[in-house]
Amino acid sequence: MTATRPEGLLACIEDDLTKVEERLVAETRSDIGEVRAISGHTLLSGGKRLRPAIALLAARCVGRSFDTHRAYAAAAAVELIHMATLMHDDVVDEAPERRGRPTANAVYGNSITILTGDFLLAKSIWLLSRDEENLNLVRLFADVTIAMAEGEVLQAAVARNWNLNLTTYEQVIERKTARFLAGCTEAGAYLGGGTEAETAAMRAFGHHLGIAFQIADDLLDFLGDPKQTGKPLGTDLKDGRVTLPLIHTLAHCDPATRAELLTTLERGQALTDSEIAALTAVIARLGGFEVARQEAEQRMERALAELNRFPESAYRDALIRLAGYVVARDR
Amino acid sequence: MTATRPEGLLACIEDDLTKVEERLVAETRSDIGEVRAISGHTLLSGGKRLRPAIALLAARCVGRSFDTHRAYAAAAAVELIHMATLMHDDVVDEAPERRGRPTANAVYGNSITILTGDFLLAKSIWLLSRDEENLNLVRLFADVTIAMAEGEVLQAAVARNWNLNLTTYEQVIERKTARFLAGCTEAGAYLGGGTEAETAAMRAFGHHLGIAFQIADDLLDFLGDPKQTGKPLGTDLKDGRVTLPLIHTLAHCDPATRAELLTTLERGQALTDSEIAALTAVIARLGGFEVARQEAEQRMERALAELNRFPESAYRDALIRLAGYVVARDR
Repeated sequence: MTATRPEGLLACIEDDLTKVEERLVAETRSDIGEVRAISGHTLLSGGKRLRPAIALLAARCVGRSFDTHRAYAAAAAVELIHMATLMHDDVVDEAPERRGRPTANAVYGNSITILTGDFLLAKSIWLLSRDEENLNLVRLFADVTIAMAEGEVLQAAVARNWNLNLTTYEQVIERKTARFLAGCTEAGAYLGGGTEAETAAMRAFGHHLGIAFQIADDLLDFLGDPKQTGKPLGTDLKDGRVTLPLIHTLAHCDPATRAELLTTLERGQALTDSEIAALTAVIARLGGFEVARQEAEQRMERALAELNRFPESAYRDALIRLAGYVVARDR
Repeated sequence: MTATRPEGLLACIEDDLTKVEERLVAETRSDIGEVRAISGHTLLSGGKRLRPAIALLAARCVGRSFDTHRAYAAAAAVELIHMATLMHDDVVDEAPERRGRPTANAVYGNSITILTGDFLLAKSIWLLSRDEENLNLVRLFADVTIAMAEGEVLQAAVARNWNLNLTTYEQVIERKTARFLAGCTEAGAYLGGGTEAETAAMRAFGHHLGIAFQIADDLLDFLGDPKQTGKPLGTDLKDGRVTLPLIHTLAHCDPATRAELLTTLERGQALTDSEIAALTAVIARLGGFEVARQEAEQRMERALAELNRFPESAYRDALIRLAGYVVARDR
C-alpha cells in the first residue's frame, strides 16, 4: 500500500499526483539510513494526500497559470509538513497506530521520530525555498506551522476542561486544522495565477472546509467504524479532548445528567467500551451529533459558495466533490 | 538571570546583542499562554547567545554593509533555531537539567515542549522570510536544520557502537554542531556584504570552529566541573555516545584493557561515578584527552587562519578571542 486516495474524485489530477509522489520519494532521501527508514515508513503508510490534491485542484481551478515544477514542489512540501506534524502528534499522543498501521514512534521510538519530524519540516521549507518566487509561500507555511503548534498546545492545555466553550474549541480547530487547509488553497490559488480576490476566495474555501473537516473528524471518534478509521472509538474522550458534540450536550443537559456525565468523563484512560457507548447514547439523545453535523454542513456550504466565482471545470467539480467526501467520509 | 554571555568578549557588539534580545522577546510572543510560558522559560534559562554573537561579529568583521533590521532578525532567528533544537534534544535525551536549571520538558512535560519547539522553528523561518532579500538565508538555515536532525539521528543510531570510527564521529559532529556555526558565519558574511571568497572564508571559519567546539564539549563530559557545566560527568558514557577520547583509547589499548573497558561501558545508565572516574583515568593514561585537545587546537588554528583575509578590527579580535573561549571554556 502506498497512498490511499479518495477513489475516483481525483482522476483529473492523477498525473499531477503521480509526479508529486515521485517528488516525495526523492525529497525524503537522506544518506542517514534511519532517517530514510522512518520517512519511508510514514510516506508509505496510507496517507490520502488530501492536502497536495487540494492545493493542485485549487491551482488548476483558478487556471490562469500552472508551472508544473513549482506546483509539484509546493504540493510535495505541504505533504512533508503534514507528515512531520503527524509524526510529532503521534509522539505527543503516544499513538500506537494510525490508519490501522503501527506509527513511526511505535516502530522506531520517540527520539528518532521527533528528529525525523524536524528533518521533514526543514525539508519542506528547503524545497519551497529553492524557487526564487516562493518567499511568500515560505512565509505562508511558516505561519501555518506556527498556528498548528499553537493549536496543538492549546488543545493539550484545555484537555479535561469540561466547561470548554465554543470559542476556544473553534480556536483549537481553526489553528490545528483549518489554517493548514486554508494555506493549501491559498498557495494553490497563488500558483494558479489568481487575482487577489480569487486568492482570498480560495483561502476562505479552505478555511471553511478545514473547520468542517475537523468537526467531521471529531464525529468519527464517536460514530466511526474502527475497522474503517483504524482507531478505537472514544480516543478523544479518554484523552479528555472536548469536542462539539460533548460541548453541546454538557451545555444542554439537566444538572443530574451533567453530574453523571462528568463522573464518567473523569475516568479518562480508564473508560471502558460500554461507558463510551453509554456516553455516546446520551450525546445522541440530547442532539449533540445532530448539532455537530449541521455545523459541518453549514461550513461546507459556506466553503462551496466561495467556489461560485470560479468557472465551471473538472477541477472545480473535483473540489466540490472532495468537500463532500471530507464531511461524509468514514475514515 | 537572562543570557549569560562570555564576559568581556562581546563588548564591541553589546548594543547589537541588546537589540537581538528585544527581538527574541518579541518573536516568542504567542496568544497561547503555554507556548509563551515554555518559550520564555527557555529564553531566560541562561543561554550564551553564542550563535547570534558569531553571526553579528562575522557581519561586522566583513564590514561592507550592515542593515541593522535584517541583521538583528537573522541573529534572533538563529537563536530561535538553537532554542528549538535544544528543546527537542532535551526531550530525546530525557534531560532533567541544562546549565544547572530544569529543562522545559522537566517542567512542562514532553508533549508541549515538542510542540513549542516546532513553534520556535517555524517562527525562525517566518522571521527570516519577512525580508524579500532573505530567501537564501531561509535555504541556508533549512539546510542547517536538516543536517542537525540527521546528525542527531545518526548519533542515536550509532550509540553503544564501541567500534565507531573517526569518519562517522566526524560526520556526527559536522552535522549536529559545525553545520550550524558555519551557517551563522556564512549568514553573517552575507549580511556584511561579503564577496563570494569572503563568504566562503567565513563559512570555513565557522565550520572548523564548530568541530573544535564539539570536541571541547565532548571533553567536558569527562573533565568538566559539574558545578560549572551544570551537568554530571559521564553523561555521554551512560548514553553510549562514543566520542574522540574514547575512540582513540579503544583503538590503541591492549586486548585485555579493551575487554575490560567494554565490560564497563556496557553497563550504560548503571555506570557509577567511580566507574566513570576509572574509565577517565584509563583514557587519560592512554592519551585520549591529549589527542582530542590537539585535534581541537588544530581545528581552531585552521579556523583562525581563515580570518587572516579580513582587516584588523575589534570585531575580528572578538571572533579570535571567542574562538579561544569556545575551545578553552569550562561550561
